[in-house]
Amino acid sequence: MVSKRLMELDIILPEVNPAVASYVPAKLFGNQVLISGQLPMQVGNIMLDGPLNKNSDLDLARSAMRQCFLNGLAAATLVVDLDALQGVLQMGAFICSTAEFTDQHLVANGASNLAQEIFGKSGQHTRFAVGVNALPLGASVELSIIFQV
Amino acid sequence: MVSKRLMELDIILPEVNPAVASYVPAKLFGNQVLISGQLPMQVGNIMLDGPLNKNSDLDLARSAMRQCFLNGLAAATLVVDLDALQGVLQMGAFICSTAEFTDQHLVANGASNLAQEIFGKSGQHTRFAVGVNALPLGASVELSIIFQV
Amino acid sequence: MVSKRLMELDIILPEVNPAVASYVPAKLFGNQVLISGQLPMQVGNIMLDGPLNKNSDLDLARSAMRQCFLNGLAAATLVVDLDALQGVLQMGAFICSTAEFTDQHLVANGASNLAQEIFGKSGQHTRFAVGVNALPLGASVELSIIFQV
Repeated sequence: MVSKRLMELDIILPEVNPAVASYVPAKLFGNQVLISGQLPMQVGNIMLDGPLNKNSDLDLARSAMRQCFLNGLAAATLVVDLDALQGVLQMGAFICSTAEFTDQHLVANGASNLAQEIFGKSGQHTRFAVGVNALPLGASVELSIIFQV
Repeated sequence: MVSKRLMELDIILPEVNPAVASYVPAKLFGNQVLISGQLPMQVGNIMLDGPLNKNSDLDLARSAMRQCFLNGLAAATLVVDLDALQGVLQMGAFICSTAEFTDQHLVANGASNLAQEIFGKSGQHTRFAVGVNALPLGASVELSIIFQV
Repeated sequence: MVSKRLMELDIILPEVNPAVASYVPAKLFGNQVLISGQLPMQVGNIMLDGPLNKNSDLDLARSAMRQCFLNGLAAATLVVDLDALQGVLQMGAFICSTAEFTDQHLVANGASNLAQEIFGKSGQHTRFAVGVNALPLGASVELSIIFQV
């Protein structure tokens, strides 16, 4: 049960802005919940912006990815009950990077590790992690997710 | 019915080049039609090339994304009848950008808005929109799509 | 039968490192095998690193993509028998590029052509190919794959 596990981890899901556009934060399709690319929004602000470089704080970058995952989990509740979620299938992690930064996989772990903390073994997922030179609103990270219901 | 809706919107689908390679423009899988990354080809030419920057014409960029969506819709007809398409599940929008350009989400709306114009509520989809520093043939935008049948 | 075809092509699958993290190389979901983003690892080393530019050796770049596909095929065997694989549904090709390099589609053919060599017509897949400015460990290419079982 996700809701119980979140309580144990002392995690409160962020609020989610319902769909206001031609695209939506979450969509139920069969036994998948597709989640739109999530930015590291925290209480209405981007919590980390600009490209990551060799001197960037990796812990902070991982926290931003963790926030993306939480925002995606909250988005999922727009289309299914939180406890209907059974696990995580796939993630796509985009990390705004300078050309010299090559630790995208370590940054993506911020989301991956939380997935496993919450869902246990069924939180294990496939993923890609790549660097990009720009993201919407100047965010440092963006994460797309597919949950299993 | 998509064909009727396209007539109402005065949209004529572009021609689509059938598969000539080891990858294909469209593939039917269960009740999904997967569409390969579409470039903004218009009558055989890339209609917008080079990275977008802060001074770029957003309307033109949105038009290019709209063209990608139309090309993807045309590609879908290689594997299913146009009127078998029930909606749009997911899009991946790649926008060739300078590091300073952070309006990728606004550019992607060119495809998202058209999806909803054509399919109504079932055109609402999840998506990611990211900046990249280079795209095939120098195109400014590329769009992957999953339709529902 | 994939195993027989690999023998005919004189291809020996690389060894695959089993899951050691919160994400996994492969996951079975219904009749899909999702594969995490594969780097061009060859006998424990990245076989091609750094951004591709106009003077890069395209054949070498295609070989790196081919290696990614082989690594992904090997990863699939962590969750299904090799001969259970029926074809390839989709690939996502990320090519580390300078802003001037626009032949990402030609590089991606290294994976796509091998897919068809091994799987024949059912190896035909949809794909996107995009340039990015940085990849994990400095690799020149990364490939995500979805196989059909």
